[in-house]
Amino acid sequence: MTSCRKTPPPAVEEGPSRLGKPVSAYGERSPLEKPARAPRSSTKTQEAASSTTPLQEQTGILTPSSLHFERHHAGVPQIHPERHRLLIHGMVDRPLAFTMEEIRRLPSISRILFIECAGNGGAEWGPKPAPDAQRSHGLASCSEWTGVPLKLLLEEAGIQPRATWLLAEGADACRMQRSIPAGAAESILIAYGQNGEALRPEQGYPLRLVAPGWEGNVCVKWLHRIKAFDRPHMTKDETSKYTDLMPDGTARQFTFLLDAKSVITRPSGGQKVAAPGFHEITGLAWSGRGRIERVEVSTDGGRNWRNAVLDEPRLPQAFTRFHMPWTWGGRETILLSRATDQTGYVQPAREELVAVRGLNSLYHNNAVKAWRIAADGSVTHVEG
Amino acid sequence: MTSCRKTPPPAVEEGPSRLGKPVSAYGERSPLEKPARAPRSSTKTQEAASSTTPLQEQTGILTPSSLHFERHHAGVPQIHPERHRLLIHGMVDRPLAFTMEEIRRLPSISRILFIECAGNGGAEWGPKPAPDAQRSHGLASCSEWTGVPLKLLLEEAGIQPRATWLLAEGADACRMQRSIPAGAAESILIAYGQNGEALRPEQGYPLRLVAPGWEGNVCVKWLHRIKAFDRPHMTKDETSKYTDLMPDGTARQFTFLLDAKSVITRPSGGQKVAAPGFHEITGLAWSGRGRIERVEVSTDGGRNWRNAVLDEPRLPQAFTRFHMPWTWGGRETILLSRATDQTGYVQPAREELVAVRGLNSLYHNNAVKAWRIAADGSVTHVEG
Repeated sequence: MTSCRKTPPPAVEEGPSRLGKPVSAYGERSPLEKPARAPRSSTKTQEAASSTTPLQEQTGILTPSSLHFERHHAGVPQIHPERHRLLIHGMVDRPLAFTMEEIRRLPSISRILFIECAGNGGAEWGPKPAPDAQRSHGLASCSEWTGVPLKLLLEEAGIQPRATWLLAEGADACRMQRSIPAGAAESILIAYGQNGEALRPEQGYPLRLVAPGWEGNVCVKWLHRIKAFDRPHMTKDETSKYTDLMPDGTARQFTFLLDAKSVITRPSGGQKVAAPGFHEITGLAWSGRGRIERVEVSTDGGRNWRNAVLDEPRLPQAFTRFHMPWTWGGRETILLSRATDQTGYVQPAREELVAVRGLNSLYHNNAVKAWRIAADGSVTHVEG
Repeated sequence: MTSCRKTPPPAVEEGPSRLGKPVSAYGERSPLEKPARAPRSSTKTQEAASSTTPLQEQTGILTPSSLHFERHHAGVPQIHPERHRLLIHGMVDRPLAFTMEEIRRLPSISRILFIECAGNGGAEWGPKPAPDAQRSHGLASCSEWTGVPLKLLLEEAGIQPRATWLLAEGADACRMQRSIPAGAAESILIAYGQNGEALRPEQGYPLRLVAPGWEGNVCVKWLHRIKAFDRPHMTKDETSKYTDLMPDGTARQFTFLLDAKSVITRPSGGQKVAAPGFHEITGLAWSGRGRIERVEVSTDGGRNWRNAVLDEPRLPQAFTRFHMPWTWGGRETILLSRATDQTGYVQPAREELVAVRGLNSLYHNNAVKAWRIAADGSVTHVEG
């Protein structure tokens, strides 16, 4: 730390005795702040594309709505909420079309929940993992979501006992469709609010299905239709995609639940540890199975592990922020983090994951992530 | 609810089969969404001014940073974080000037906390209370704040035992100053993060003092100086302002702690209850003393009260969202809400508050708020 300078240098741009800017209707961040979503580099179009949250810049557990990751299959449609309808049909006694105003009149609930793309960490399957936390883990974000329990809407429509599956469909041009076990409706929100205001357009404005702890693809955006049915529809996005090719040639399908995961966000790839001495190691952990119970951190490449401090509140299916004090001696080392959730599930090492799943997968990689600290303080990924 | 129409009308603006917008670096809300902060109408300038959060539009417990209320005494200064310093001096062994980067290296903590201006509800003292929830209660907002415990900075500087008070000063042109008992440093954050990103300029970018549960004026923005001292400094903003003139002519001073409060946000003033039938009553409650334990709602002008459902998590010194199912018969009535916090403190009726405090105050009004529902469904304030 710096000892006291006689006079701190002037930091106020317009001079210390001038009035600043007036009050405003809807604020914006400082123009000096630059964190931005990064589009996925391999994308051929910007409509069927994704962009990642700069997790390495995030404070706390909430992702700013402006920086929530994106994954669109046909771009962001512009939907007028007054004309939007949610159709509940199929194996129901009373097919219903809800207006947004009708949905807002119903009992609502708010929950702080992460949403993670099944493809998050996809690059970690290969020999060259992503160079920074944004590109390795930034297809995950955490928001407060507000909406109506899906169960309530299904009860209103009179869902029939033989309807064991639901088809959820978006109003985007590709009509994104996913099949969902009807029993999951217990915990699913039909959300219209995000972080205190209406959903952002790229998060499904005006209506999104939010399935706590399930892969993001299931959380259908621009939701306009739910069809009750007696079996899964086997849509494109649950057959050709979002499945995992196993070593024996079979495919894992309908895995839904996201396993426990963690990533150190500071220091992380692309950053520089300024100098030997005290630093706080911090990062994020989450699990689709419930609360994060423990995060262990190693500062010596995995030989020794210590429990990190976890910020409260530790909410189920939400980001949990962890902290670990660290005095860096100035020598090259490797930092790792490993999450355990309330069910006792422990985040696997990369080799443990590969032993079970092989190397043919694109999705569902939750392996322990390593960052190399070089002697000059620069932080890089560790090759697999 | 509407029964199923054969075909829902098209709601997608650009036609159902065209690609939508591409991914983007930093998202914005839909141009169709209009909630906005309202400047206080009595303000003579827009720099020494306030603006209120549209609580009646807020979902959940978190206020969007863009809609967090404002109260500036000399406008919003533009501060360059690389040149900003926090000076800790006065009765300390080692005066220190911290850079932002030095502060970010220290152990941090995140907490979801409300900030409320002591003047929130000021209009409720008079015979004509504010016509809507934004203008009656909108000088309160709730964010996730991230920063360093003040205690840690004071320990680094070696605060001396006789330093029982701290002077906190902002870098705005008026050099906003407040005296704070040093013992409060235990729970105070020196915050640089808000809702996952850097503080917004109008919330003190790059550094703000956040005192959980204390009046907003104490939460000094653009914080550049903390001086340890053996008594309060008796600054303008703790003598001529933010004190309450009592019926006996004395002034309450250094009250700091904000008592339990609640407001129904839907239905609330300026809204219209569309039709008789089912509606959800919802609103927000908070207390500087800790968690909200109970919110009672009356739908008959205070004759009968029922406990509302409280959303989890119920965090200390944070907004708590309450819900109450209500079937409106279509006749004129009055809705009220009353909060009780974990200490057993019960939000007072207006006449109970006035009996103690008289009618000379501008600040610290936490009385129960009433909304009149007219037979046509329109919602208005109830005169005192």
